[in-house]
Amino acid sequence: MAAQRPDIGRLLKPGSIAIVGASATPGALGASVLGNLERNGFAGEIYLINPKRAQIAGRPCLASVEQLPDGVDVAVLAIPQTAVLDTIRALAKRRVGAAIIFSAGFAEAGEQGQAEQSEIARIATEAGMVIEGPNCLGSINYQQGVPLTFVQVDIRDKTCAQQPCIGVVSQSGAMMTVLCTTLSSRHLPLSYAVSTGNEAASVAEDYVEFLLEQSHTRVIAMIVEQFRHPERMLAAVAQARRQGKTLVLLHPGKSSAARASAATHTGVLAGDYSLMRTKMERAGAVFAETLEELGDIAEIAIRCPALPAAGVAVLGESGAFKALTLDWAEALQLDLPVISDQDSPQLRAVLPGFVGVSNPLDLTAQGLVDPDLYYRTLTALLEDERFSTLVIGLIQGDAVTCGIKMPPVLRAIHDLRPRKAVVLAGLDEGAAVPPEFIEQLRSLGVPYFPSTERALRAVQRLTALQARRFESSHSEPKALALPADRTVVPEYQAKQILAQAGIPFARGELATSLEQAVETAQALGWPVALKAQSAQLSHKSDAGGVILNVGDRPSLEQAWMRLHANVANYDGNIVLDGVLVEAMGRRGLEMIVGARQDPQWGPVILVGMGGVTAEIMRDVRLLDADLSVRQVLHELDQLQAAVLLHGYRGSPRLDREALAELIVRLGQVLRGTPAIREIDLNPVIVLPEAQGVLALDALMLIQGQSG
Amino acid sequence: MAAQRPDIGRLLKPGSIAIVGASATPGALGASVLGNLERNGFAGEIYLINPKRAQIAGRPCLASVEQLPDGVDVAVLAIPQTAVLDTIRALAKRRVGAAIIFSAGFAEAGEQGQAEQSEIARIATEAGMVIEGPNCLGSINYQQGVPLTFVQVDIRDKTCAQQPCIGVVSQSGAMMTVLCTTLSSRHLPLSYAVSTGNEAASVAEDYVEFLLEQSHTRVIAMIVEQFRHPERMLAAVAQARRQGKTLVLLHPGKSSAARASAATHTGVLAGDYSLMRTKMERAGAVFAETLEELGDIAEIAIRCPALPAAGVAVLGESGAFKALTLDWAEALQLDLPVISDQDSPQLRAVLPGFVGVSNPLDLTAQGLVDPDLYYRTLTALLEDERFSTLVIGLIQGDAVTCGIKMPPVLRAIHDLRPRKAVVLAGLDEGAAVPPEFIEQLRSLGVPYFPSTERALRAVQRLTALQARRFESSHSEPKALALPADRTVVPEYQAKQILAQAGIPFARGELATSLEQAVETAQALGWPVALKAQSAQLSHKSDAGGVILNVGDRPSLEQAWMRLHANVANYDGNIVLDGVLVEAMGRRGLEMIVGARQDPQWGPVILVGMGGVTAEIMRDVRLLDADLSVRQVLHELDQLQAAVLLHGYRGSPRLDREALAELIVRLGQVLRGTPAIREIDLNPVIVLPEAQGVLALDALMLIQGQSG
Repeated sequence: MAAQRPDIGRLLKPGSIAIVGASATPGALGASVLGNLERNGFAGEIYLINPKRAQIAGRPCLASVEQLPDGVDVAVLAIPQTAVLDTIRALAKRRVGAAIIFSAGFAEAGEQGQAEQSEIARIATEAGMVIEGPNCLGSINYQQGVPLTFVQVDIRDKTCAQQPCIGVVSQSGAMMTVLCTTLSSRHLPLSYAVSTGNEAASVAEDYVEFLLEQSHTRVIAMIVEQFRHPERMLAAVAQARRQGKTLVLLHPGKSSAARASAATHTGVLAGDYSLMRTKMERAGAVFAETLEELGDIAEIAIRCPALPAAGVAVLGESGAFKALTLDWAEALQLDLPVISDQDSPQLRAVLPGFVGVSNPLDLTAQGLVDPDLYYRTLTALLEDERFSTLVIGLIQGDAVTCGIKMPPVLRAIHDLRPRKAVVLAGLDEGAAVPPEFIEQLRSLGVPYFPSTERALRAVQRLTALQARRFESSHSEPKALALPADRTVVPEYQAKQILAQAGIPFARGELATSLEQAVETAQALGWPVALKAQSAQLSHKSDAGGVILNVGDRPSLEQAWMRLHANVANYDGNIVLDGVLVEAMGRRGLEMIVGARQDPQWGPVILVGMGGVTAEIMRDVRLLDADLSVRQVLHELDQLQAAVLLHGYRGSPRLDREALAELIVRLGQVLRGTPAIREIDLNPVIVLPEAQGVLALDALMLIQGQSG
Repeated sequence: MAAQRPDIGRLLKPGSIAIVGASATPGALGASVLGNLERNGFAGEIYLINPKRAQIAGRPCLASVEQLPDGVDVAVLAIPQTAVLDTIRALAKRRVGAAIIFSAGFAEAGEQGQAEQSEIARIATEAGMVIEGPNCLGSINYQQGVPLTFVQVDIRDKTCAQQPCIGVVSQSGAMMTVLCTTLSSRHLPLSYAVSTGNEAASVAEDYVEFLLEQSHTRVIAMIVEQFRHPERMLAAVAQARRQGKTLVLLHPGKSSAARASAATHTGVLAGDYSLMRTKMERAGAVFAETLEELGDIAEIAIRCPALPAAGVAVLGESGAFKALTLDWAEALQLDLPVISDQDSPQLRAVLPGFVGVSNPLDLTAQGLVDPDLYYRTLTALLEDERFSTLVIGLIQGDAVTCGIKMPPVLRAIHDLRPRKAVVLAGLDEGAAVPPEFIEQLRSLGVPYFPSTERALRAVQRLTALQARRFESSHSEPKALALPADRTVVPEYQAKQILAQAGIPFARGELATSLEQAVETAQALGWPVALKAQSAQLSHKSDAGGVILNVGDRPSLEQAWMRLHANVANYDGNIVLDGVLVEAMGRRGLEMIVGARQDPQWGPVILVGMGGVTAEIMRDVRLLDADLSVRQVLHELDQLQAAVLLHGYRGSPRLDREALAELIVRLGQVLRGTPAIREIDLNPVIVLPEAQGVLALDALMLIQGQSG
């Protein structure tokens, strides 16, 4: 039997549904699923399967799955865990398109469950069947009104099929319902919500790919703890970006404590968070830190006519609010362009004399006596090309006050129909704002926020997305020949290999005899460094295998003996390939540059300050391997230590460009030579401007039997 | 005329009120003030002053302030700025107790306004009159229902006079109204709200001191940009702590951008934020970062039977929520004690087998089928002595779901009446929770939060308060004799002075001749360091005035010459007191310790890692000058660099205790010798455990003409 590719559409847009374990008992899963379908007016075929009943709620029951007609779209399994595997087998025979498994007790519950889940996956793959779950809460199609879950759902409004919608994908079923409740309470249009559970066969990536094909789904809000197919996910995020869709991710489990607890509820362990985040952000995803933020970001992304971008203006009515906003913007790293009376003639013209032009703008309470001030000021701000985003922070007070302030605000937006993001937020959360004002704002594409803190935070997340540079360096991947017999490549050899890609090292040569060492030193010029070389010796300093500043021939003779004695003393089994004789490196700023091929997420480069202090401060950046020099320079500037590169307290400016070049080249190597698992350049000495960088040490691990 | 001390009670609990600038025009300030008083049923005398009208709203008008009877409690000035000063003069003559000045245009508006404000202050001081404002929005007495503001106020419920209340003090009038709206919308009982404005005479400190005397005011929520009397404020905070009252502060203007803007709206500049925060926290204040947090913290502080303290348990219903909570707790630095099946017999006994004991606890959706599970679990958690605080994170869904889950939660709290802080928060913000459940929770002392993020954040702020150690070191202040003729004390002299207080320095002596230097070096043992000494030479290294590692007599002779030549070359006018000859310091971790006497906030000590890298990482702590060794050790452990003190990667553990001792002694000196403006010990070398510390350099500034 040739399997077809599972079609998520059969799960989410089913024409026919079977409920295995249908029930007439209120509260039973099978009864709740049927109740949901009936209440929401599902118009397709419904098959109930219950061997003990002839009918339920006036509908006939089938005794078993075997009695189903061929090719029902989706079967909902409202049955105990023990019956699931056999039922899936039977459903596959009936060529059912998709199955939803609510039951827990699979991969998250131990070996037996893991084995059963694998068997389900095997059957599904063979039959081309979509499997949602196990250990999930089902899914909801809001556009056609098809709830496939036992949680009570009332889809009020299917007309959202015609407007931009939010799609929800959550591994956790509970979080799916939580997010849908929150988004619905804000009257945000939803398209589909899916809980993927243990992902026996169908995974988050499948659902995201499906949602990208749905033209009205413009925002995808995800709660995902682990991606099983990172490369597909990254491709989907990039695809979303090309389509102008926004993908927002909440990732539970970044802390070590959470990772430890993860195994207990979905049977998967979270991967490396910062690596995942680097790659996902680079592809175009937005990260939310909390549930609150996830909803906030999704709301702005779906309602505003354009995403917030750099150039945020804040309109307020109080000096203290202005100060608080400046504080908060600094904490968020949200840039508020500075404006003044001098450079803002249009604003100056519309404001009373005692209101100075500034950002945030402080209108004072003047709007209460002159409500048209809101209209005039908003008009000037919306027409001001320095601003692409406007946050209005309003003191709402009560219905009377709202009745004074809101109409001119609404009128300005109505008249100008800005193609900019405009967000209105209250300062006084909980004020009795008449709901019609909120509805009118929303209908004009203006999200309403209960607090300015939340509005500005969500705006910041999206402006940061817009500020990201997605272009790649266009540098060619560089394929390097690697030694066939190694997994650990010793320094001298790693340097030979990497030098071909233009990584700058100190001049030097491997010496296998004292005489050769002396010749090399004389050719290089004194003083030199000696470094013992062996694949077995990854910590040569600890072994006394490094001797620096060897100034003349007698010293070299002594050092040669001492070095060999040290290594022999450290571990008698180590055989040296030889001793690397190098010109002594010049002084400069010590950085570390590491490169890694992650089996899941691909190549990534780490850069940070060298030295113990920098190490404990964790002042590092993780970079994708295909950044341009310009992008790398931008990333380097995010380091706290960046000031040292720019010349600190009278020190010279350092050669940032050369460091960026080195990182770009390392990226070329990683991308072109995937057999390289890891490269460590530690330290890399950054010299003054125009004098380059020098990697003093190099460690390379390549694929092989060693872990 | 002997002035009496201004009595804030006459402003906030007035028996008689005069409205200067009374008006019959709706919307006019004078009309709004009268409307507020009448609507809220003010029962005392009201005097209206308007020279153009015989009566307003059926009340007779006086033509001028002069016609007022002697000793009216408070006058509200609803008049233009230009008339204010004369009116204040007249009010003082009529011995009015307090005046509220709404008008702007004083200190914040330039020199003329500043002069007028000073004159108002002078009159008020002489007459013993309270002045609220200028540039304020007035105040509200919620307990007796006396609104003295033009913002419409409706005090629904004066019965809160019998229960714990929140008092509000805000320099910004707008923020006062914003905060009162928010707190009222949460049905939080308020006592008084005051906007202090420009604080011409009466200042935030006066109002806080008044509120501390009001027994029912248990929480004071403040929005203050600058304290004019730091020492009084610190005393008030300490007083609040002794009374078991909580003082929460939102401080607009900590960012540099906000400071720059501050001058434009209240005429004051913010001081040093981190210093203020150090002192205020040490006294017992809680800082809120945003308006949202200010309300959140105040709500928990006023509702809960005890403040949240370390030992927070989180009860949830989802594995993903558990992971999110662990992530969030890590970000907040909120410690969630780890518990397990083994150490929690009571919890183990009440949970179903498939629910493991953990914190956060994940009940799964089991509570829907077995609602009593909430009761049993809450009972076990509330009786568990490892927890002093409980946050319940509930998936609320809809009214039906709430109807299942809320009753057992309410029943458990009702039955146990815990003396612990319990907070209930929804995961799905916006869910249709029946208001009666929220009311019942509140009546049981359980704040209801719309999101768990906010609940946990506010809980963290208060547990951090509870974890603070307020005891002082009981170390005696140390009075040291200072040179009379100096403002900059050169190193050798500073070391002599500080050595008396037990600050450890390298052995050494001042030499005024080469021969004396040689003798000293021989007595100390070679090698030695030479350091040029002069009050005029504060950067001796830059001047070539420091030569290290001088190994023998000939080297010393050379070095002596070179040092003098260098200094002469650097600045020919410098006269040296001599050359400090010191034993070379041993290697260890370089720290910096600085001490400063702030003219406003008093003595403070800064400690951090030395070296350029540490400097740019800003890894420092600011400490009060009367901490105990134990408290200093605790603060040192907050440094990121703390791992280096504890022995990093095989390095020895360092003598943290000796460093803490040094800091305590420096504190004794600062407290006992207030003429010292600044001491810099940079670097302080921390040696391995039990080997002490050594300050290598010392700079001391003492009071004098130099800035």
